[in-house]
Amino acid sequence: MNDVRVKIKAVGICGSDVHYVKKLRNSRVAMKEPMVLGHESSGVICEVGASVTHLRVGDRVALEAGIPCNSCVLCKEGRYNLCKNVRFFGSPPTNGSLTQEVVHPASLCYKLPDNLTFEEGAMCEPLSVGVHACRRAKVEPGRRVLILGAGPIGLIVLLVSRAFGATTVHVTDIDQRRLMAAASLGAEGTLRVSSDMNDMENEVMELKQLIGVPIDVTFDCVGITKTMQTALKVTKSGGKVCLVGMGQDNLTLPLTSSAAREVDVLGIFRYCNTYPLCLDLLQSRKVDVRPLITHRYRLTEDDMKEAFQTTAMAGDAIKVMFTI
Amino acid sequence: MNDVRVKIKAVGICGSDVHYVKKLRNSRVAMKEPMVLGHESSGVICEVGASVTHLRVGDRVALEAGIPCNSCVLCKEGRYNLCKNVRFFGSPPTNGSLTQEVVHPASLCYKLPDNLTFEEGAMCEPLSVGVHACRRAKVEPGRRVLILGAGPIGLIVLLVSRAFGATTVHVTDIDQRRLMAAASLGAEGTLRVSSDMNDMENEVMELKQLIGVPIDVTFDCVGITKTMQTALKVTKSGGKVCLVGMGQDNLTLPLTSSAAREVDVLGIFRYCNTYPLCLDLLQSRKVDVRPLITHRYRLTEDDMKEAFQTTAMAGDAIKVMFTI
Amino acid sequence: MNDVRVKIKAVGICGSDVHYVKKLRNSRVAMKEPMVLGHESSGVICEVGASVTHLRVGDRVALEAGIPCNSCVLCKEGRYNLCKNVRFFGSPPTNGSLTQEVVHPASLCYKLPDNLTFEEGAMCEPLSVGVHACRRAKVEPGRRVLILGAGPIGLIVLLVSRAFGATTVHVTDIDQRRLMAAASLGAEGTLRVSSDMNDMENEVMELKQLIGVPIDVTFDCVGITKTMQTALKVTKSGGKVCLVGMGQDNLTLPLTSSAAREVDVLGIFRYCNTYPLCLDLLQSRKVDVRPLITHRYRLTEDDMKEAFQTTAMAGDAIKVMFTI
Amino acid sequence: MNDVRVKIKAVGICGSDVHYVKKLRNSRVAMKEPMVLGHESSGVICEVGASVTHLRVGDRVALEAGIPCNSCVLCKEGRYNLCKNVRFFGSPPTNGSLTQEVVHPASLCYKLPDNLTFEEGAMCEPLSVGVHACRRAKVEPGRRVLILGAGPIGLIVLLVSRAFGATTVHVTDIDQRRLMAAASLGAEGTLRVSSDMNDMENEVMELKQLIGVPIDVTFDCVGITKTMQTALKVTKSGGKVCLVGMGQDNLTLPLTSSAAREVDVLGIFRYCNTYPLCLDLLQSRKVDVRPLITHRYRLTEDDMKEAFQTTAMAGDAIKVMFTI
Repeated sequence: MNDVRVKIKAVGICGSDVHYVKKLRNSRVAMKEPMVLGHESSGVICEVGASVTHLRVGDRVALEAGIPCNSCVLCKEGRYNLCKNVRFFGSPPTNGSLTQEVVHPASLCYKLPDNLTFEEGAMCEPLSVGVHACRRAKVEPGRRVLILGAGPIGLIVLLVSRAFGATTVHVTDIDQRRLMAAASLGAEGTLRVSSDMNDMENEVMELKQLIGVPIDVTFDCVGITKTMQTALKVTKSGGKVCLVGMGQDNLTLPLTSSAAREVDVLGIFRYCNTYPLCLDLLQSRKVDVRPLITHRYRLTEDDMKEAFQTTAMAGDAIKVMFTI
Repeated sequence: MNDVRVKIKAVGICGSDVHYVKKLRNSRVAMKEPMVLGHESSGVICEVGASVTHLRVGDRVALEAGIPCNSCVLCKEGRYNLCKNVRFFGSPPTNGSLTQEVVHPASLCYKLPDNLTFEEGAMCEPLSVGVHACRRAKVEPGRRVLILGAGPIGLIVLLVSRAFGATTVHVTDIDQRRLMAAASLGAEGTLRVSSDMNDMENEVMELKQLIGVPIDVTFDCVGITKTMQTALKVTKSGGKVCLVGMGQDNLTLPLTSSAAREVDVLGIFRYCNTYPLCLDLLQSRKVDVRPLITHRYRLTEDDMKEAFQTTAMAGDAIKVMFTI
Repeated sequence: MNDVRVKIKAVGICGSDVHYVKKLRNSRVAMKEPMVLGHESSGVICEVGASVTHLRVGDRVALEAGIPCNSCVLCKEGRYNLCKNVRFFGSPPTNGSLTQEVVHPASLCYKLPDNLTFEEGAMCEPLSVGVHACRRAKVEPGRRVLILGAGPIGLIVLLVSRAFGATTVHVTDIDQRRLMAAASLGAEGTLRVSSDMNDMENEVMELKQLIGVPIDVTFDCVGITKTMQTALKVTKSGGKVCLVGMGQDNLTLPLTSSAAREVDVLGIFRYCNTYPLCLDLLQSRKVDVRPLITHRYRLTEDDMKEAFQTTAMAGDAIKVMFTI
Repeated sequence: MNDVRVKIKAVGICGSDVHYVKKLRNSRVAMKEPMVLGHESSGVICEVGASVTHLRVGDRVALEAGIPCNSCVLCKEGRYNLCKNVRFFGSPPTNGSLTQEVVHPASLCYKLPDNLTFEEGAMCEPLSVGVHACRRAKVEPGRRVLILGAGPIGLIVLLVSRAFGATTVHVTDIDQRRLMAAASLGAEGTLRVSSDMNDMENEVMELKQLIGVPIDVTFDCVGITKTMQTALKVTKSGGKVCLVGMGQDNLTLPLTSSAAREVDVLGIFRYCNTYPLCLDLLQSRKVDVRPLITHRYRLTEDDMKEAFQTTAMAGDAIKVMFTI
C-alpha cells in the first residue's frame, strides 16, 4: 500500500560490502547465507502502492537504505538509525539493492531533482554519513575542523564540513594521492602522516603548527589507536572528536587526559533525517560528489569481480559505482 | 575593589589534595615548591572591597575555588572551567584555602542560607562536580543512571542524579561498605564487583539483569580500563558515558563498538555556574550532604596528619572536613 | 497485525471535549457530524494482532491518543505531535475513546505498572501535556517557575515542574479555591489576580516581590492578553515564556520589549515521547495525580450530561473521570 | 592594565544613533545629557596596558561595543549581552566611539586580518547582530529562511543566513530598490509587500507560493504588527520566528494559533561571542559587507549633519560610514 517498486539504476560500493565479500562479516555482523549486497542506490519508480501520493511511475529517486520499525523508543524520538529492528540493505539477513528491482517504502524514496544523475542519487547514502557526522559534531561557521583519513568517507566529511560553513578544514592521510584529492576538494591544508605509532608526537606538533589555532572538531575516519590518540591530543579543550572509521576493535587511549579537558568523543552509526538535505546540497552544488566517482562498472560477472577488487585495493579509486 | 577578605571556617579534603601530599603531583600537574592546599571551603566575610555591593562583613559564604581570566574565548562563552589561565585554590602554583584567611573575588563568594552550616558550604565544591557531571550528561526525569564507583564523588553524583529526577540510579563498587552507603543515600540497587578484569563480562550481564531496562547514562567515577569497558558495554545505544574518575592514564577500550551504537563519551573538568544551584539544592534538602561528612579535624599539626591519612586510606571515611 | 483491541475502563474529560459538546468546534477545528469524544483513556487488552509481542490479552494499558503517519519529516525527526496526518482520538473526523472498545496500534499502548489504577492510566494524557511543556521550556533544578492559571493543566504543570526539580513554583489564578489546590499540591506561593487589565502593573510588581528572584520560566495556562502580558513582563532576561492555554485568538503584546530581553515565547501542541516517563513519574509517586480527580461518573446518559456540565462549570471540579 | 588606547579610524551609523539624534531616546532608553554616539567602530592601537599580551601598538582592531560586568550570572553563563551592568558605546550614559580615541578592554579588541579595511572592521558590529540572530534561530544547511524587511540589518541577516548554509533565503520589503539589493546579495526570491494590513492574507499566500516548501525560520527585521502576523502565519509547524526589528512597541498577534503549531518566537538583543566569527567570515569573503557601505563621510560638522540625514531618510543608503 505504502510501498513502491524501483528499478535500480546506480549502486555504489562501500567498504562494508567489500568486507562481506572477503570475510563474510563486517565487524560484529556475520553473513550466514548467500545474499544480495549494496546499499548506495537510486532508480526509477516502476510501480506505486495504492496509498502513495508523492511519487509516480517514472520518478527518479534516491533510496534511503534502512527501514526502521517506527515503533521503538528510538524511532519515535527521531533517532531511527539506532533502531534495533531496522532492516538495512545488504546488512544480513536483509538483501541489498545491487540488483534489478527492489520494493521499498515510498517514504524512504526521495525524488531526484532534474539536474542530478542516478549516480549522484546513489551518493546520497555515503553523503548521509558525512551529514550525520557533521550534525552530531555541530560543525558550523567558525569551527576549525581536522579530518584524519582521506578515504571516501573522509573526503565526504571534508565536503560536508565545508558546506556546513567550517572556517577551515585540514586533512591527514598516509597516502599522498589521497591528500591531493583532499586539497583539490577544498582542504585548507594537508599533512602526510605515517602508520608508525612512534611518529605520533611529532605529527601532533606538526598538526598544531600547521593549523595554528585551536581545533574544534576532529573526525577520525580511520579508527585505529594512532589516529584516535592523535585526535584526542590535538583537539582543543571543550572540543569534539567524532569517531567515524572502524579500523580496529580495541583502542588504547589517553582518555583520562582528554576527558579532563572536556574533549567529548562522539560515535556515529549510519544516519537519520539526512536525505532531503543531501539532495539540497547536491542540487545547489554546495556539495559536488562527482569528482569522487572514479570507477564505473556494469552488472556483469567480470565487472563485479573487478569492481570489488578495485574498491578493496583502494589505490586511486575513491568511489566505485555500478550502472545498471 | 571587587574582592573580599574571608576568614576560613571549614575546608574539606579531596583526593587530589592527598595526591599532592603523597606524590607532590596530581595527574599531570606537579607541585614545585611548598604551598597551601585545600579548595573546598567556606568562611565569614571580614572585609569588603569598595565596589562590592552584594556582600557585607559578617556574611557567611561558600567560596568557588577557581578564578577564571574572564578574557579568553572559553570564559566569554560561559565554559570558564576550561580557562587556561584560571587560578584554582591549591592547584600549583596557586595557594589553597586550607588557611586562616583568603582574599577572593566577591563574585565568587556565595552567601550561605541561614539553615546551612559552614561544612555544607564547603561541600558546595565537590557537589559542584556532581552537578556539572549531571548537567553535561543531561540527567533528567526518565533517565536510568548507573554509577561505577561509590567513593565521595560517586556518592555525590548519586545524590545529584536523584535531585535531577533520574528514574533509577544503580551503583557498583568493590567495597561493600561503600555500597551500603550508596543504598542508604537512595540507590535503587547496588552490585559488588571485583577488581579482576576477567569478571567483567559476567558483571556486565549481572548489571543488565539487575537494572532490567536500558541504561541511559553511566558515570565512571573510577576511571580505569575495567570500569570504562563496563560503561561502554552496558550503556544503551544513543546513551552517554561520563568519565569522572581519573584512575588510570591510558585505557584500552572497545570504542569502535560503542561508537557504532552512538554511545558518547563525555569528560568533565571541575565545574562552572554551579554554586547558586548547589546552595538551592542544599537549602531545600533536595540534596543532603551531611551524611557524607564522616570525619572532622582541627587545624593542628597532629590533626592534619591524621586527616590526610584517613582520607588516603578511604576505609570508612567518605568526606574528611577541617573546622577552623 | 500490529494493532490491539482495548476494552476501555476509564476516560477523563478535557476542556476541548466540552468545547466540542457546546460549540461543535475547538479553536479552528470544527465537528461536521456526530462522533465519539474522549482522548484521555486506559483499558484492558482483549485481543492482540499477530505481530504484537510486548502486550498480551489481559494487560492493563494507557492509550496514547494520537496515531502519527510515521512518514512525514516531522514524524521522522521525532516531533510526531506536529504531524499533519495524525489521527487523534476525538479530534474530528477521528472518533474518540469514550466508548466500550477501540482498536489501537500496540506501539501506542503502554502497560500500566501494578500499583497504578485505570484512572491514573487515563491521566497520562493530560500529564503528557505537562511533561511536554516542561521539556520544551527546559525546567530543571535551579529554575524558578511561575504558572499563570491553576486549572487542570496549570496544576499538572505545577506537579511536573516540581518533579523536574524546579527550585520554586509560584501560581496565580482568579479563583481562591484553585490557588488553595495549587498550594496543597506544593506551590511555594500563590497570588490571587483579577481579570481586570488595569490591575496588571500592580500584579506584576506583587509577583516580583512575592518571588524575590528572577523568574526563569513562565507558563501561561490561560492564554489571554492579560496573562501573556504579565508573563512577558515578569520573566527574566534570557528566560522563557511557554504559552499553554488557548483563551483568546488574538493577543496584544509588548513583544518588542520582551524580545529585546531575549525572553523567548514557546508554544506547545499536545506531546510526543511522553508516556513512558508519565508512567515512571506516576509509579514512583514523584507525581501523584489522584488529588486532581475530583468527580467520577458512569457511562449512562444522565451521568454523561452531568459530567460535561461539571467540567464546563469548573467550580470545584478539577478532573472529571468516567469509569466504564 | 588590561586596557588599550585605540585611535578610531572608521565608525558606522546605526538606526539607533539616528533615534538618539532625533528624539534623544531609543525605545525605552533616554539620553539625559549631551554625549558621544557611535558603536560600530575600528581603529589602531596607540597604547597598551601592562598586562596586555595579544595586542601591540600599531595593530588594527575591531572594537566590540559592550563591556559586560563579568560578575553576574548571565555573564558567567556566556550570555553577556544580557548583562544588566553592561556599558555599551553610545548607549546612555556611556559615551560612544564616534570620536578620536577611546580606551577599551584589550579582550574586546580583535585584530583585523590584513585583507580587511577599517570599514569592514567597523561592520563587525552590525554583522554581529546577524550572526547572533542566525545562531539563536539555528540557521543551518537545509533550512529555508524568510526575511521580512531589507534594511541594513535585514540585508546582513541575508548575508549571514547564506554563510550559515541556508538552503534558500527569500526577502520581502515595501521598497523595490531594497529588494534589488537583496537579490544582488543572493536572495533566491523577493516579494514586494505593502504597508497595508488588508493585503496581508494575500501576501501570505503569495509568499507560500513563491517559496513552495515549508519555511523553517522567519526573521522579522521590521517589527510591526503586520510583519509579525505574516511571520507567524507563514512559518512551518515547529519552525522559528526571530524578532529582530523594533518598529512598534505593542503588537497584536494570533499567537494562540502559532503556539499551537509550536512556532517559537525568539528575541535577540545585540550579540555575544561573535567577533572572531565575524572576522573569519569577512576574511574568507564568505560574507562580503562592502556592497552595503553606500555613503562615506568625514568627521566635520557639515558631514555629520548630512550623514545622519542620509541614514534617517534611508533612501538608497544602506550603511553610512565615517572615516576619521
